[in-house]
Amino acid sequence: MPGTVQSIERAAAVLRLLAAAPDGLGVADLGNALGLAKTTVHGILRTLHQVGFVEQDHSGAHYHLSDAFGRLGETYLDSNELRSRAINWADSLASRSGEVVRVGRLVEGKLVVVHHVFRPDDSDQDLDVGTTLPPHACALGKAVLAFDTSGAARPAKLEAYTTRTIVDPARLADELAAVRTKGWAGECEEYIVEMASIAAPIRGLGGLVVGAVGMTGRIERICDSRLRHRPDLISMVRATAEAIGRDLREDS
Amino acid sequence: MPGTVQSIERAAAVLRLLAAAPDGLGVADLGNALGLAKTTVHGILRTLHQVGFVEQDHSGAHYHLSDAFGRLGETYLDSNELRSRAINWADSLASRSGEVVRVGRLVEGKLVVVHHVFRPDDSDQDLDVGTTLPPHACALGKAVLAFDTSGAARPAKLEAYTTRTIVDPARLADELAAVRTKGWAGECEEYIVEMASIAAPIRGLGGLVVGAVGMTGRIERICDSRLRHRPDLISMVRATAEAIGRDLREDS
Repeated sequence: MPGTVQSIERAAAVLRLLAAAPDGLGVADLGNALGLAKTTVHGILRTLHQVGFVEQDHSGAHYHLSDAFGRLGETYLDSNELRSRAINWADSLASRSGEVVRVGRLVEGKLVVVHHVFRPDDSDQDLDVGTTLPPHACALGKAVLAFDTSGAARPAKLEAYTTRTIVDPARLADELAAVRTKGWAGECEEYIVEMASIAAPIRGLGGLVVGAVGMTGRIERICDSRLRHRPDLISMVRATAEAIGRDLREDS
Repeated sequence: MPGTVQSIERAAAVLRLLAAAPDGLGVADLGNALGLAKTTVHGILRTLHQVGFVEQDHSGAHYHLSDAFGRLGETYLDSNELRSRAINWADSLASRSGEVVRVGRLVEGKLVVVHHVFRPDDSDQDLDVGTTLPPHACALGKAVLAFDTSGAARPAKLEAYTTRTIVDPARLADELAAVRTKGWAGECEEYIVEMASIAAPIRGLGGLVVGAVGMTGRIERICDSRLRHRPDLISMVRATAEAIGRDLREDS
């Protein structure tokens, strides 16, 4: 059919064959069954493995559907994986910007901080890892919410944390549309008075947004005198998000 | 990662988002979430729809995972679909060859005849539709078995129907390897004395073998004087299988 994608058709055929073979199948089995060259089957299996749909047995000779494939909507990347990919990039962002850097992801409608880098000075700071934040009131949350299609993270009632928190669902929808257009999210005093933040989405395989990385600091350092987020910091945050995403896509 | 297939990564991302969105998602939702152009998302959805992984709601505006996606190993094409695609091609093969033509598929380890065209003469004939045949003893069965990876259709004991039936598993494995190489299957008196048959696999989307089409007739008409299957009939059967497969892939 014109307009369909042959490699997806083949991947679907591989998934069907694996689903029907409880003991798993090898590359030759699949190539024979589908009339495809081994190199073609290899490329498909490697990709299906990367996206978490198939696993190899211990010998590496056989492939089978992953357990996670049966729970597609629930699982993709776990927090440890995201954190381990993000650590070096987040450290680097913190040391260049001099601000607190955090990495977060949506879990059951909350923005969970999975990695936290202290501001590189000697000030007294609390470790945020494991903390949950209201997604609508922080830049990390907005950066992820803007690309969330599950609807699970949109509370019926948007709680106010300061007088600047966005509590009108229509205004939040406009804000999230702007995040999609700009590619980054920001807030000034929407969660904590005198504090501002900037964040950008981290894209995993296939473009899936798997979390966000951002920086938080006093409003006079994050924003200019007219309360606009500083372009140099926005660029740094976006470049960091892109670097983490690239790492995730290449090595996951 | 080098060697992975971007369109499969994207399709996997679409499946994950749909799995997490019980109310379904539109093309724009998916494009926004994944940072992909609408035309790209459209091509992915169309393909996932073709392979039976996603469905559209009545309005056509939203896509959701199909029920069949949860039972990947069980379902693909039903017998009605295969029959309806095969009817015209099978008729044409019967009228050109003058022989009985049948279309079959594997169901629970049996070769089920889903379509039967009478030999175009006035002889007394039984309608075979719905009949099951032993896959190892007929050409239709071998044509499908050769590409079956589920293992479900390989009985531990191969029953003998004539003195020529293949009852040794190792010999059957060699025979099926030859079928894969040649692209067609044959038998002479392996199921019924004085009868012979020729069949070829029908490939659906992604190369998946979904059934076979073949002809059956008296051995002196199907084979030459040295009991070799007639090349002209082999060509007709293979061309018919290819035509049915092309129809399935284009319109399913």
